[in-house]
Amino acid sequence: MQSPVQGRLLYRVPYADTDQMKFVYYANYLVYFERARNELMRSLGLPYRELEARGYGLPVITAHVDYKAPAAYDDELELRASVGWLRGVRMQVDCQILCDGRLLASGYTIHAVMNMATHHATRLPDDLAAIFTNGITAEEACP
Amino acid sequence: MQSPVQGRLLYRVPYADTDQMKFVYYANYLVYFERARNELMRSLGLPYRELEARGYGLPVITAHVDYKAPAAYDDELELRASVGWLRGVRMQVDCQILCDGRLLASGYTIHAVMNMATHHATRLPDDLAAIFTNGITAEEACP
Amino acid sequence: MQSPVQGRLLYRVPYADTDQMKFVYYANYLVYFERARNELMRSLGLPYRELEARGYGLPVITAHVDYKAPAAYDDELELRASVGWLRGVRMQVDCQILCDGRLLASGYTIHAVMNMATHHATRLPDDLAAIFTNGITAEEACP
Amino acid sequence: MQSPVQGRLLYRVPYADTDQMKFVYYANYLVYFERARNELMRSLGLPYRELEARGYGLPVITAHVDYKAPAAYDDELELRASVGWLRGVRMQVDCQILCDGRLLASGYTIHAVMNMATHHATRLPDDLAAIFTNGITAEEACP
Repeated sequence: MQSPVQGRLLYRVPYADTDQMKFVYYANYLVYFERARNELMRSLGLPYRELEARGYGLPVITAHVDYKAPAAYDDELELRASVGWLRGVRMQVDCQILCDGRLLASGYTIHAVMNMATHHATRLPDDLAAIFTNGITAEEACP
Repeated sequence: MQSPVQGRLLYRVPYADTDQMKFVYYANYLVYFERARNELMRSLGLPYRELEARGYGLPVITAHVDYKAPAAYDDELELRASVGWLRGVRMQVDCQILCDGRLLASGYTIHAVMNMATHHATRLPDDLAAIFTNGITAEEACP
Repeated sequence: MQSPVQGRLLYRVPYADTDQMKFVYYANYLVYFERARNELMRSLGLPYRELEARGYGLPVITAHVDYKAPAAYDDELELRASVGWLRGVRMQVDCQILCDGRLLASGYTIHAVMNMATHHATRLPDDLAAIFTNGITAEEACP
Repeated sequence: MQSPVQGRLLYRVPYADTDQMKFVYYANYLVYFERARNELMRSLGLPYRELEARGYGLPVITAHVDYKAPAAYDDELELRASVGWLRGVRMQVDCQILCDGRLLASGYTIHAVMNMATHHATRLPDDLAAIFTNGITAEEACP
């Protein structure tokens, strides 16, 4: 059975992330998604910093979050990301936020593939595109 | 012609909101949405602080942002929000972020109406519900 | 009597800035200081964006905050900044945060004057230095 | 030789923490200090969440940061905190931020010891005070 490569990160919630409802403020989940995406790209063997060094960026054009249960101060969250799809000049990354194995939030970001020199949308060269598409179907190594 | 009541706010972008791509970081748009919602509720005559004093909260259950053009340091943004709909125990607020009349981002948040004492979803009493539904169809006074 | 030119800004506290103690989280005061500095430079006739366009930056080398009373959600804060001193390649900006005329926090930031091309500390040219030093002793126009 | 108990945490810098100068925005260091304090209290055997459950809080009354070298996106930072002193109703925590063994920033926070029910400053009971004072002089176990 195949499952996509995942970025995974444990993250301890600081006071900074909470608001006066005593739970994590909703915008912070998009930061959690970014932390998971960074680890996803590291897991794929292409840290985002290297993608930038190759001249490409992945600015977010759509972000979506469904909040199912709140996270609280000092919770140790598991932040997960995987490649959803890569088509032409666009890519989707799917994310989940869990605590003790329970899903707290899920969502996705859609990214434009951008040539950082021209600031125009562009297709990735085949070798870089393969890294993402292989990540979708690759059997993940045991942790 | 009728247009909904809007919350409107001018907001100057600090360095704090930017990232190393030299534009506003994507999660900050959800904070901008919140700032606009706060002004919307003030415009409706029911500041969120008063709604809480009445025993109700509006936690976010879905957030969605479409990013069309970037915002930069020192830009003076216009943050706008209006009530999309109120049905049963749920409500949608629509938001737009503009700069110099140009749309930079749009999106929405869906909220549960929550009884803050029981933490259960609940319908708003008629007088409070009317404030929101009137806001959808009310002809807005000239600014 | 002379008083220094001040940057002043009214700022409404969003949920985003609060934490589960129900007050503004302490790190956000440094963002408030930045917002006040931005307005100070605009008041001096030299927005920070223009200083950067002239090739200079003012990275923070020390920050200090004394917290006297808490700020809460929906408070309308007054953020104030003024030039403390400019000596050689360093400058201090003094900041106060008030609510309803009551001092909530005060502090300062010390900045290096940096040539952004070389990333070395440098003295400002006389015309730019005068803008800051005049700001210290100038009689402020009535608001 | 004795050295104080330290809170230590590895932390990967996300895009969220950077600004358009391409380095970590200065206010984020106070969040890093908080993350390190949380780990310090866990290392002392008294997680902050438990201190709160005992009825005490440690609101910050002074914060100070000296910035020596910048941190960048994707850097893996080491966040460190140790108890500086506990005297009467006040306590200092000292913090350092490092990258690859190099000191990027240092500073401290001074906290009031607060009875969370009365919101008044108070002395800690002896058993809790001992946890902090022992942390200052205890020989730290090998990592």
